[in-house]
Amino acid sequence: MSVLVTGSIGLDSVETPHGKVEDAIGGTAVHFSFAAAHFSPVRLVAVVGEDFPDKFKKIFGSKPVDTTGLEVRKGSETFRWRARFEGDMNEAETLETQLGVLGEYGPKVPSEFTGSETVFLANTHPALQRELLSQLTNPRIVVCDTMNLWIETERDALLETLGLVTGVILNDAESRQLTEKQNLIEAGEAILRMGPKFAIIKKGEHGALLITPDAVVAIPAYPTKNVKDPTGAGDSFAGGFMGYLDRVGKWDESTLKSAMVRGTVTASFAIEDFSIGRSSVVETEEVEKRVKQFAAMLRVE
Amino acid sequence: MSVLVTGSIGLDSVETPHGKVEDAIGGTAVHFSFAAAHFSPVRLVAVVGEDFPDKFKKIFGSKPVDTTGLEVRKGSETFRWRARFEGDMNEAETLETQLGVLGEYGPKVPSEFTGSETVFLANTHPALQRELLSQLTNPRIVVCDTMNLWIETERDALLETLGLVTGVILNDAESRQLTEKQNLIEAGEAILRMGPKFAIIKKGEHGALLITPDAVVAIPAYPTKNVKDPTGAGDSFAGGFMGYLDRVGKWDESTLKSAMVRGTVTASFAIEDFSIGRSSVVETEEVEKRVKQFAAMLRVE
Repeated sequence: MSVLVTGSIGLDSVETPHGKVEDAIGGTAVHFSFAAAHFSPVRLVAVVGEDFPDKFKKIFGSKPVDTTGLEVRKGSETFRWRARFEGDMNEAETLETQLGVLGEYGPKVPSEFTGSETVFLANTHPALQRELLSQLTNPRIVVCDTMNLWIETERDALLETLGLVTGVILNDAESRQLTEKQNLIEAGEAILRMGPKFAIIKKGEHGALLITPDAVVAIPAYPTKNVKDPTGAGDSFAGGFMGYLDRVGKWDESTLKSAMVRGTVTASFAIEDFSIGRSSVVETEEVEKRVKQFAAMLRVE
Repeated sequence: MSVLVTGSIGLDSVETPHGKVEDAIGGTAVHFSFAAAHFSPVRLVAVVGEDFPDKFKKIFGSKPVDTTGLEVRKGSETFRWRARFEGDMNEAETLETQLGVLGEYGPKVPSEFTGSETVFLANTHPALQRELLSQLTNPRIVVCDTMNLWIETERDALLETLGLVTGVILNDAESRQLTEKQNLIEAGEAILRMGPKFAIIKKGEHGALLITPDAVVAIPAYPTKNVKDPTGAGDSFAGGFMGYLDRVGKWDESTLKSAMVRGTVTASFAIEDFSIGRSSVVETEEVEKRVKQFAAMLRVE
C-alpha cells in the first residue's frame, strides 16, 4: 500500500523566539511526507517553480517517498511564505505570501499513481482538490484539509469536496468557522452532516479531537518543552495519521485513535527544530519508542 | 481515611449562555466535597455568616461529608460572588465580590479533625493556609491551590506555604504568573523547585498536566457538549483528585494519574448544571462508569 499526498512545496522564512531560517524547505506535502513515510510508502504530487533549488530535489534521500509526481514548472516561481511566531508560538503571523506556481493550474497525477487507495488532499482550492481526486481510479480512504480563505470565499465548492471525502483534518478555528458552532464536538457533528465519516479537529498544543457518528475521542498533544518552530506540526500530524491508516488499511474507531497517536508523535518531532531539521533525521525506531511512551502515559488504571 | 478540606462556602449568582442562578450555593469547599465524597469521607472546615440560609445547612444530606468544622459566625455575612460566562465560557467575568466573613479571621479546625492525614488547602491567604495546616498533628498528603491576587501581593507568604505542601493544583494562568515561564512544563518544574513534590496544572477544557521530578503526564478533559456552567469545575477536579489519593493512601506517579482521571470525571459532572445541580445528585456508580469509559477512550494500541 502507499499513501498519495497532494499539497504544497515551498520556501519558508520563519522566525520564532528560538531563532530563524531563510528560504528553508517547507510546504504541507514535505512535512506530511516525512511523517507518513515512517508508516507507509508515500507518493507525492506537487508543483514547484523553475527557481526551486537543486539541493532540495533529493531531500527525501533513501526514504520511501516517490517524487514521480513532483513537477518543476518552467517559467514559474516556487511558493514562498514568510512568518513569525511569538510568545507561546500558538499562532503564526504571516508576513508575506508569494503564491507563485500555486496560483496557476494544478499538477497532474502521474499514471503510476492513479491507482492509489489512500489519499490526502492538503489545503488548496476545493475545486482543485476535486480535480486531483477525479484522476484516481480507486480511492478508498480520502481525507482533506482546508483553510479559512476557502471557507469564506468558496463555501459551495468546499461543500462539494466535503461530500466526496472519507474524513477531514481541520484545526479548531477552521472547524468553528465552517460550522458556526463554538463547541468543537458540535462542530465535528456538523461536519459529519456535510458528508465526511469522521472529523479530526486539531487544537495545537492542546491535542486533537476525533468525532465519528458513534464516538468522541480526545487525545492530548505530546507534552514537551522542546519546541523551536511549530511550522508543519499540523501537516506532520496528518502525515503520521494517514501513513498509519494506510498501513492498517481501515478506519474503524480503534484504528483512527491509534492513527491520531502516531500523528501526535510525528508532529512532536517536527516542532523540535526549524523546517525539516528534526523530522528528516528522526529514525522510525525513535518514533515507535515515543508512540509506546505516549500510549503508556495515557494508560490509566 | 478521610480528606480534610479548608475552603470557602458562598452564595453564587452566575449567568451563562444557558441560563442563570441567584444566590445559589457555591464555594470551593462545597464543590470539592461533593466530588471527593465519591471516593473517601470528607471533613469540611469553612466559615459562613449569620445570613447563611438554613436550607443550605443540610445540602450534603446522607453523603459522607462531616460538617463539624462549619462555623456559622454571628454578626458576619456570607461570602458572595456574582459572575458571568460568555461565548466559549472559558473564563469567568467577575461582576461583584463581597468577601464578608472571608475577610475576617479563619475558621478553627475542630479537635475531631486535627489528626487528618490528607489535606486540601483551597485558595485563601497563604498565611491562613499555613495557620490551618499548623493545627494538624499528622498531615501526610497536603495539596494547596492559590490565586493571582496572592501571587501578586503575597509572594513571600505564598512561597513559605509552597515549602510545606506535598503538591499544588493551579491553573495555567496562575502557574505562568507564579513562575514567569510560558511553557507549562517549565512552569511545573519551576514550581517543584519551590518545594512541592508534584504540580497539577489545570487547562480548563483542554485538560490537565502533571509534573513530577520524573514524569510529565498530559490528560485531556472529558470531551462533552453538555456544559451549562463551568463554576466549580476546578474545585470538583481537586475534590475527585484528593478523594482518590486519600482512598489509595499514596501519591506515586500511577496513583496521581488515576487521581487526575477521577478529578477530570467529577469536574465533567459539575459543569452539566448550575451550582451543585448535577454534582449533588450524580451517583457514585455513574462516576465510576464514566471513569471506565474515559480510561477506555485513552487506551491506545
